[in-house]
Amino acid sequence: MRGKRIRLLADHGELDVLREIRRRGAEGERGGGLRLGIGDDCALLRVRDGEELAVTTDLSIAGRHFRLDWHPPESVGHRTLARGLSDLAAMGARPVAAFLSLGVPRELTLRKGRRGSWVERFYNGLFQLAEAHKTPLAGGDLAESPVALADIVLVGAVPAGKALLRSAARPRDLVYVTGNLGGAAAGLSSLAEFAAKRRLVLSDPAAAPSELSPHLYPQPRVRQGLALQRRALATAAIDLSDGLSTDLLHLCEESSVGAIIDASRLPVAEGASPDQALHGGEDYELLFTARPTTKIPRAIAGTPITRIGEVTRGQTGRAPLTIISGSGLKPLQPRGWQHFSDL
Amino acid sequence: MRGKRIRLLADHGELDVLREIRRRGAEGERGGGLRLGIGDDCALLRVRDGEELAVTTDLSIAGRHFRLDWHPPESVGHRTLARGLSDLAAMGARPVAAFLSLGVPRELTLRKGRRGSWVERFYNGLFQLAEAHKTPLAGGDLAESPVALADIVLVGAVPAGKALLRSAARPRDLVYVTGNLGGAAAGLSSLAEFAAKRRLVLSDPAAAPSELSPHLYPQPRVRQGLALQRRALATAAIDLSDGLSTDLLHLCEESSVGAIIDASRLPVAEGASPDQALHGGEDYELLFTARPTTKIPRAIAGTPITRIGEVTRGQTGRAPLTIISGSGLKPLQPRGWQHFSDL
Repeated sequence: MRGKRIRLLADHGELDVLREIRRRGAEGERGGGLRLGIGDDCALLRVRDGEELAVTTDLSIAGRHFRLDWHPPESVGHRTLARGLSDLAAMGARPVAAFLSLGVPRELTLRKGRRGSWVERFYNGLFQLAEAHKTPLAGGDLAESPVALADIVLVGAVPAGKALLRSAARPRDLVYVTGNLGGAAAGLSSLAEFAAKRRLVLSDPAAAPSELSPHLYPQPRVRQGLALQRRALATAAIDLSDGLSTDLLHLCEESSVGAIIDASRLPVAEGASPDQALHGGEDYELLFTARPTTKIPRAIAGTPITRIGEVTRGQTGRAPLTIISGSGLKPLQPRGWQHFSDL
Repeated sequence: MRGKRIRLLADHGELDVLREIRRRGAEGERGGGLRLGIGDDCALLRVRDGEELAVTTDLSIAGRHFRLDWHPPESVGHRTLARGLSDLAAMGARPVAAFLSLGVPRELTLRKGRRGSWVERFYNGLFQLAEAHKTPLAGGDLAESPVALADIVLVGAVPAGKALLRSAARPRDLVYVTGNLGGAAAGLSSLAEFAAKRRLVLSDPAAAPSELSPHLYPQPRVRQGLALQRRALATAAIDLSDGLSTDLLHLCEESSVGAIIDASRLPVAEGASPDQALHGGEDYELLFTARPTTKIPRAIAGTPITRIGEVTRGQTGRAPLTIISGSGLKPLQPRGWQHFSDL
């Protein structure tokens, strides 16, 4: 985060926020791999000898990935960071540092009520999740923009050669997921209803109905991904950002395999439909494969693990995904997450 | 760069571009530190034992950092990467990988004439500079956006404890710059004149008058920064993105020192005014300090080095920067780069 952009908001009387960003960003400097944070041309990070770096970027744009009139700013900050942390989780990497480029229209920097400006509330949501995962904000950029947008970068570390890849699933591996599925899609659907009835949940995020939580405040499975990597439990992994049917297809394509899913085994979240569990996006659970001989615990770090299917040999000309249910076997089409502009 | 966003443009018949991005992005994988590029949840990078990572992000937004009606797309791609490479140069770090989050309105993905779409031409400009500095594009994100924007992330490596910081200048150090100053500001001014006369330089960037080059295609001083670091020549460094008067102030503030600049020594670029050399931004030259006993070469990697002043003791209540010229000594006010929206 360089001087000139800090000044951009400082000119608007936002110095307090920026001091706070620098202070809270620096909190992680004591431990972890961050050696030099905000204030120079680059941040400096250190990882352990023999570790590789995992790096991911995710761009969120108002109207496409979130809506200013639906999502509390704390939720937008939380979700922005959750997307990046979830990518690290899917590689089995430990978070080292985050970088945020934030572009906002000028009015979002203005203080509104006792909770502060949109920007302050966005950072509050982001920092709360960052602190839960001991991830310092090491830098970024802050600029005025006609549309609100946030690009998050996560840098993680993983022992060389030990990262969980999408490409290493093998036929006869079993397919597992963490947690429950469909809760984020069900929450989004409720959020849309709330918005249609003008019962906005923007003003006090603590008062938002709990059914919205899986959508507004998804929990990235960083500890679970780390455990899978450290205990060498998984052959391949991906995070469920687009939806089970779509992300499983990504994993199968990268591994040149197919998969069969047992509908009766899907851990459907409370309030969600089986369809939302199969195709709803943004649950940020992990999907992983393991050798049939590997003993997988029922839960990792308090999150249940469910076996939902099996990896099959990929066959040219055949749909790679199949689902088995009461009505028998049929192809499973990827019908994953559509962005807001497509709703 | 994750599957879903690749599909976003693929749906618009842009598959060729995306194959090309993946292919050209992967070219760096053979050498360097990139172990796994586009296609998984994260990219994997490897640095040498004993090295630290330097990470920087820079957000560019249409209408603020570039203008779609002024800048050829190749220039926007070039300038986006140049900003990030220049930050690495200022730390004395070698580039390891770049990540790009690109947001564009749909019409910029449509093919126009034999040079291709705006997006294709943007990537051409970016890749040309990336290849010159052997920097692979390891990932990123691609999304539809109501405004064109590009967030660039550069990851570099530098031996632990050897990075050139802004904060290590000491009184009696001498102040140097690489190359010439003011060329980018003069080029921008010419570009504005061209645009006002509707003599656009957008269609064929090769035909753009050479006086525009310092603005359209600035050369980040990566080799020079590396040499300063490896040969332990500099005490502190910063890149000139905002303009000499502003960036020198940043360095002085971080080092708690002052500086005196000799106006007669400034290496003013051809066609530029002394004012543009002092305050014009985006030259992407390096400003550095060195002990008075250190012998600094006249040129590094073909770029001349000029001594322009001296570091002084910082004094409370006094302006930290002073300039000496024919009319004597006077305070030097930071009047650095204003973004387009402020023009």
